[in-house]
Amino acid sequence: MTPRERVRDAYARIALGERPEAWITLRAEQEVLAEAAALDEDLPLAGLLLAVKDNIDVAGLPTTAGHPGYAYHPARSAPAVQRLVDAGAIVLGKTNLDQFATGLVGTRSPYGPVRHARDPEKVSGGSSSGSAVVVALGIADLALGTDTAGSGRVPAAFHGIVGIKPTRGLVPTEGVVPACRSFDCVTVFARDLVSAQRAMTIMSDPVWPVDAPLAAPPRPVVAVPARDQLTGMSEEWLDAFGRAAKTLEAAGAVLRPVRLEPFLEAAKLLYNGGFVAERYAAVGAFLDEHPDGADPTVAGIISAARDIPAHVLVADTERLERLRAEAMAEWGDADALLLPTAPIHPTIAEVAADPVGVNAAVGTYTNFCNLFGLAAVAVPAGPLGVQIITRGYADAVATGVAALLTGGPAPAPAARGLRLLVVG
Amino acid sequence: MTPRERVRDAYARIALGERPEAWITLRAEQEVLAEAAALDEDLPLAGLLLAVKDNIDVAGLPTTAGHPGYAYHPARSAPAVQRLVDAGAIVLGKTNLDQFATGLVGTRSPYGPVRHARDPEKVSGGSSSGSAVVVALGIADLALGTDTAGSGRVPAAFHGIVGIKPTRGLVPTEGVVPACRSFDCVTVFARDLVSAQRAMTIMSDPVWPVDAPLAAPPRPVVAVPARDQLTGMSEEWLDAFGRAAKTLEAAGAVLRPVRLEPFLEAAKLLYNGGFVAERYAAVGAFLDEHPDGADPTVAGIISAARDIPAHVLVADTERLERLRAEAMAEWGDADALLLPTAPIHPTIAEVAADPVGVNAAVGTYTNFCNLFGLAAVAVPAGPLGVQIITRGYADAVATGVAALLTGGPAPAPAARGLRLLVVG
Repeated sequence: MTPRERVRDAYARIALGERPEAWITLRAEQEVLAEAAALDEDLPLAGLLLAVKDNIDVAGLPTTAGHPGYAYHPARSAPAVQRLVDAGAIVLGKTNLDQFATGLVGTRSPYGPVRHARDPEKVSGGSSSGSAVVVALGIADLALGTDTAGSGRVPAAFHGIVGIKPTRGLVPTEGVVPACRSFDCVTVFARDLVSAQRAMTIMSDPVWPVDAPLAAPPRPVVAVPARDQLTGMSEEWLDAFGRAAKTLEAAGAVLRPVRLEPFLEAAKLLYNGGFVAERYAAVGAFLDEHPDGADPTVAGIISAARDIPAHVLVADTERLERLRAEAMAEWGDADALLLPTAPIHPTIAEVAADPVGVNAAVGTYTNFCNLFGLAAVAVPAGPLGVQIITRGYADAVATGVAALLTGGPAPAPAARGLRLLVVG
Repeated sequence: MTPRERVRDAYARIALGERPEAWITLRAEQEVLAEAAALDEDLPLAGLLLAVKDNIDVAGLPTTAGHPGYAYHPARSAPAVQRLVDAGAIVLGKTNLDQFATGLVGTRSPYGPVRHARDPEKVSGGSSSGSAVVVALGIADLALGTDTAGSGRVPAAFHGIVGIKPTRGLVPTEGVVPACRSFDCVTVFARDLVSAQRAMTIMSDPVWPVDAPLAAPPRPVVAVPARDQLTGMSEEWLDAFGRAAKTLEAAGAVLRPVRLEPFLEAAKLLYNGGFVAERYAAVGAFLDEHPDGADPTVAGIISAARDIPAHVLVADTERLERLRAEAMAEWGDADALLLPTAPIHPTIAEVAADPVGVNAAVGTYTNFCNLFGLAAVAVPAGPLGVQIITRGYADAVATGVAALLTGGPAPAPAARGLRLLVVG
């Protein structure tokens, strides 16, 4: 397909009317077609269609962060978007999200709860709900999300697509509405690992430490929790997780056990404690003044953070450091950690019945990653998704181990300061 | 003098009874003499006498942090102390300080306000008050301080001695009672730059980035504020500062002007805003439960921080980042920044009349350094002290430029991972 044909195909899929709630702002087809016609087809991402989560700025389109009253019109695109556009990607529009990127379910939005792409009874996963859905539906080739608690991985897992959550700091968060600013990452979804990795390489700053690994070793050591370490999962999903580990082993990985306690204990700190104050600092005053248009669950979480004392945030920061040291000692010399992306895939009704509890359960295995400064790639594995998690700046190891699991070609190693040369 | 003679000389000076308030715990002379007799005289610091600020652990001696009720008996010495002891230094005892290292004056202690070594009407400077005084009196050769707002530099300036405040993170803060934990540094005082630098090299972790400079360039570019940028200083001190700049220029430095506004604005954040919550997190609950033995000014500052909301700390952290970017743009390609260490040297009576206001004025030019992650060396310069400030991890540039100013030999460059080999 030429870029113009690809655009027509996307708008034809959109015209089918499936999951209209995935979009907050959709560009006019004629405008996008004109852009496709003017495209330099030698660019590395020439003609790939891009959806952007609506907490990331795209020049010319409003940014709402999922709250109509919050909308503003950015003069510039976020660097993450601009770099993809400069590489030939074409923006289709802005996607729905859990308001202010606070949630992992996809239902917390006045633009409508985002239903799963195939099973409308189930949640899409969030907070990058619309982005994952439009990739899963074949409308967009690439979609940007953000990930603080797992928002760039959980909806990938629910849809059997790939989500790359880089080490925080690699992709600029300029032009992104902060959720919990110290821990926010820009992420990318695609239907295959190579496409996602290509986009991620283009979006990243060349800020790798000199000792950052360029690829996974041929026989990576992968830490895998024993079955009894994984709580809250069905027997079917536990079996699937066991099969994913075996697939990795058959592909050359050396498996070793890992105790998850310090990881899971840290995970709870993201919403139960001082760090929620970052969410209040970002949008709390706005929410206090604009009760209309607020999602009640999101507003409840963020407004409650107004009164958290600063010394609690300080104590939680110290506690996180201690847990990180403990977790990394447990991690030892493993190249990667294999975990389920989410332990459950709830229905929209289940989330409505217990919005906070179900959301927390969904984040069990994702919440700690950004708190610890780790990198992760979410890939499909049977009926559930798994994550390949690595230490910070070992992003190339994560994609390399993920390729062992998915059986596709290993993505090219990330360029170091030569961003555009290796991805064409 | 042999080490034993040096010990006897120190205790003879102590016996003169000058500034007894400088000590909180003094070891028995016989014990110290026995240690001196058993010493390996080939060690790099063999027989140098060390005083330790009483918020830093020394095994066998209580740590009070300036509050009798807080005292505990550490099982191990802080790594900073242990490394000096392993290199041959002999601990004399623990020194008085502004309680919980909260203050720059030296008067905020139930163990007595620490008077200046020569002029008992004037403050010693703090919070590392006793450490500076016992070095100035010739009792100790080296003394450890800590520096959050300027506590390792202000008392050096008031006493015409040297104080090195390294980049934070270089010297472990393990075994140090936190003041404002994100910004605390262990520092060293000595009567000359080479001794201070030698001790600092031994105390430091080998964690330098690969691009950290190993020495000052032969013609360093030094940013120097114009006279009208320096507020609150007497004409005499302004003249002395101008002479220090001229001395540096005559020694080869290339001077250029600098605008101080973003530096001084950030300085205010250390006590006026969210960061004080770190002090509450460290000792606030203790102070709430132990009003006896608390210095009223210190307790007032720390207890007031109990109710600071976490979102204010988050907002201040972001504000600090913006001010740092602005300040570093102003800094540009300068190798160092020359500033007065303190703008005034108050009397004890002046501090008593306005404990918070005078203290804040003293910290005008020191408070921003740790907030910005900078390194600094305080050296004597006429009737006032000046600081040579550098970017983080450019500590070797700071001591090199300081050597240009003091005219002594340039200290050996810091070893990188070969700590003990180059300092003997």
